[in-house]
Amino acid sequence: MNLYFSPLACSLATRIALYEAGASAQFTQVDTRAKRVADGRDFLGVTPMGQVPALDVGDGQVLTENSAVLQYVADRFPDARLAPANGLERARLQQWLGFIGTELHKAVFIPLLDTRSNDAVKAYAKDKAALRLQVLSAHLTGREFLLDRFSVADAYLVTVLNWAAFTGVDLAAWPAVRDYQQRVQARPSVARAMQEESALYRQSQNAAATR
Amino acid sequence: MNLYFSPLACSLATRIALYEAGASAQFTQVDTRAKRVADGRDFLGVTPMGQVPALDVGDGQVLTENSAVLQYVADRFPDARLAPANGLERARLQQWLGFIGTELHKAVFIPLLDTRSNDAVKAYAKDKAALRLQVLSAHLTGREFLLDRFSVADAYLVTVLNWAAFTGVDLAAWPAVRDYQQRVQARPSVARAMQEESALYRQSQNAAATR
Repeated sequence: MNLYFSPLACSLATRIALYEAGASAQFTQVDTRAKRVADGRDFLGVTPMGQVPALDVGDGQVLTENSAVLQYVADRFPDARLAPANGLERARLQQWLGFIGTELHKAVFIPLLDTRSNDAVKAYAKDKAALRLQVLSAHLTGREFLLDRFSVADAYLVTVLNWAAFTGVDLAAWPAVRDYQQRVQARPSVARAMQEESALYRQSQNAAATR
Repeated sequence: MNLYFSPLACSLATRIALYEAGASAQFTQVDTRAKRVADGRDFLGVTPMGQVPALDVGDGQVLTENSAVLQYVADRFPDARLAPANGLERARLQQWLGFIGTELHKAVFIPLLDTRSNDAVKAYAKDKAALRLQVLSAHLTGREFLLDRFSVADAYLVTVLNWAAFTGVDLAAWPAVRDYQQRVQARPSVARAMQEESALYRQSQNAAATR
């Protein structure tokens, strides 16, 4: 398996899942703005949307979309128990993956992070944050994880919550969310993945500044 | 099962899936703006996000998020073959559900349909349509459905493409997408669901106009 990633982008969730599973995988860095793979290839030739994560699962098959890639990793390494096998609990996992992907990632954070965005777009996105973080906070109160144990939904959520600090979304207003973030970030697989990608992120920022 | 729906909203996809499966289900209309169920209940008491679809699956369990609800219906009625059982094909279904939910539904259409939106937000959203419809068009060229046969991803896609006419997104520029839409809309379960919800939509618009 080869994970196309960009440092601290949503592909971090898949790296966390792979570390949790103890999977051996390659990690290939992508400049998602230039749509360029580190080895010089056009990233649009890998996936036409030009977005990470893109997971090459072998046989020329490339899988995209966080909800699909994360469940694929969970199912390929069932011993790591990163997703309920089936039934209503699996549906709940899919519900949280859907909530994080549509309500937090796309509705709130993408417009706040996007360099092609503007003040009106950012205000519209930021206005959506409170209800979504309130719903999340109510669910996390008294819980350690989104489901009964750590799952790929937590890998995705901690990845997305990490963007709060970059976008002026202050999680202090939702202590259950902030406490959850600190707790999950301290997990070894998460701490390792975030530390490695933070270093790569600083490198890419420095390279951009000196271009 | 009881599906909380709003006419022609994304919950239409679940109605289509239930019709495809020949499932017996209740359908309960919701005013998602007033957050009010047709029987007078506060819809926020059903689901804290106040969004459809919300599927009451029994035992007081309410499931939300299109990707979760649609896969739940597919798995509960396996004879209808609305989703591949597992493996890479299931991951592809999840990839398309993710693409439709994050890239089309949330990134393009919600800002165009939302009454709290504004011109700058709409321009930002509309600017995203071309790449996404191009990717979709390339995939649909020479194919009847998103996967090898009709699936819940098609139920979701035909529901979302129906909003193009309400939002000034002209599908004529992508003939493979327009032809797909017309083909899937002619499917009996889809035609029935859209006809019924179109009538309910007109009723709700008329009621709003005379208030």
